[in-house]
Amino acid sequence: MTKKTVKTPTITACKVVAQSRLFRIEQLDITFPNGVEVIYERLKGSSNGGVLVVALQKDNSFLMVREYGVGVEGYELMFPKGRIEDNEPVEEAANRELQEEVGFAAGKLTLVKTMTLAPGYMGHLTHIVLAEDLYPARLEGDEPEPLQVVSWDVDNIDELAMLTDVTEARTIAAAYIVKALLDQRRASAKA
Amino acid sequence: MTKKTVKTPTITACKVVAQSRLFRIEQLDITFPNGVEVIYERLKGSSNGGVLVVALQKDNSFLMVREYGVGVEGYELMFPKGRIEDNEPVEEAANRELQEEVGFAAGKLTLVKTMTLAPGYMGHLTHIVLAEDLYPARLEGDEPEPLQVVSWDVDNIDELAMLTDVTEARTIAAAYIVKALLDQRRASAKA
Repeated sequence: MTKKTVKTPTITACKVVAQSRLFRIEQLDITFPNGVEVIYERLKGSSNGGVLVVALQKDNSFLMVREYGVGVEGYELMFPKGRIEDNEPVEEAANRELQEEVGFAAGKLTLVKTMTLAPGYMGHLTHIVLAEDLYPARLEGDEPEPLQVVSWDVDNIDELAMLTDVTEARTIAAAYIVKALLDQRRASAKA
Repeated sequence: MTKKTVKTPTITACKVVAQSRLFRIEQLDITFPNGVEVIYERLKGSSNGGVLVVALQKDNSFLMVREYGVGVEGYELMFPKGRIEDNEPVEEAANRELQEEVGFAAGKLTLVKTMTLAPGYMGHLTHIVLAEDLYPARLEGDEPEPLQVVSWDVDNIDELAMLTDVTEARTIAAAYIVKALLDQRRASAKA
């Protein structure tokens, strides 16, 4: 069998056109396989990617936080999340953020899915980590105020997704993906 | 009953610290209700927000596109989406993008949910529109190459969400939200 070559676009030039403390904007010259040339911009974050932590309690509920976001200038109900530090394993970052934002640590941490925000102009990766076997443990974080912690029933995600203060795509996607995983586990346990 | 006042953080200063053709980065001084002062950055896009179109075919499948994203430097399977033009209604933008990217127009368009990408540092809104009663119709778009169109069974979203070339949080969240809506419709029709 011969290997099929899939032609992909080629980046022929890349330069930084704007830079701040946290963000860098690049401008790229790209040639598509059909010869069409375009100029695109993309955003580079300063981080190693981030983690989003779906912490599951024994009563079949998720732990969420109500946090102020200056992007939307309001409080949002979201899963705890944060940046991965240099050389920090994904699961360790998840456990750290959980202790900083919620006051729990997890005995079991599972990477479930890696998501992106806007593949067209952002490379930022968010790793979704399921946290189980929880026990109280707090670490000092960099939050400007204590976060309100909210429990949400795993079997009620449809309602969660339609709340007006739940808008973050990653939170909604993560809730459904982990619910599907837990449903599969339950089905396997029954079989 | 007296009205309860919920204290929210106050933005005391806001300045542009970096700017490109498409993006603007702002730096903000913020005072939280507890008196803690922080300096945050946020990204402002140049658009009126965007639409993401979940087009439902009569055979119970969604129409998706495989599109190159320079943010991730690869092809991603996503729902068609794009920017809303000045003074363009959300449903009209959805119908235009559907015709440009997929070659179909919709007789029925329903705004299902408005999502955000990263409430902590982006204000960008994406409106999820369910498109039904489809018929062939094409408009010229600004895509550098024709997009591969893929049908995906509505009842198989768990598998879709775990594909390695499906990473966009908005696409995963929108698929689950619309599936939940369609399930509710089916349940109502039976009752």
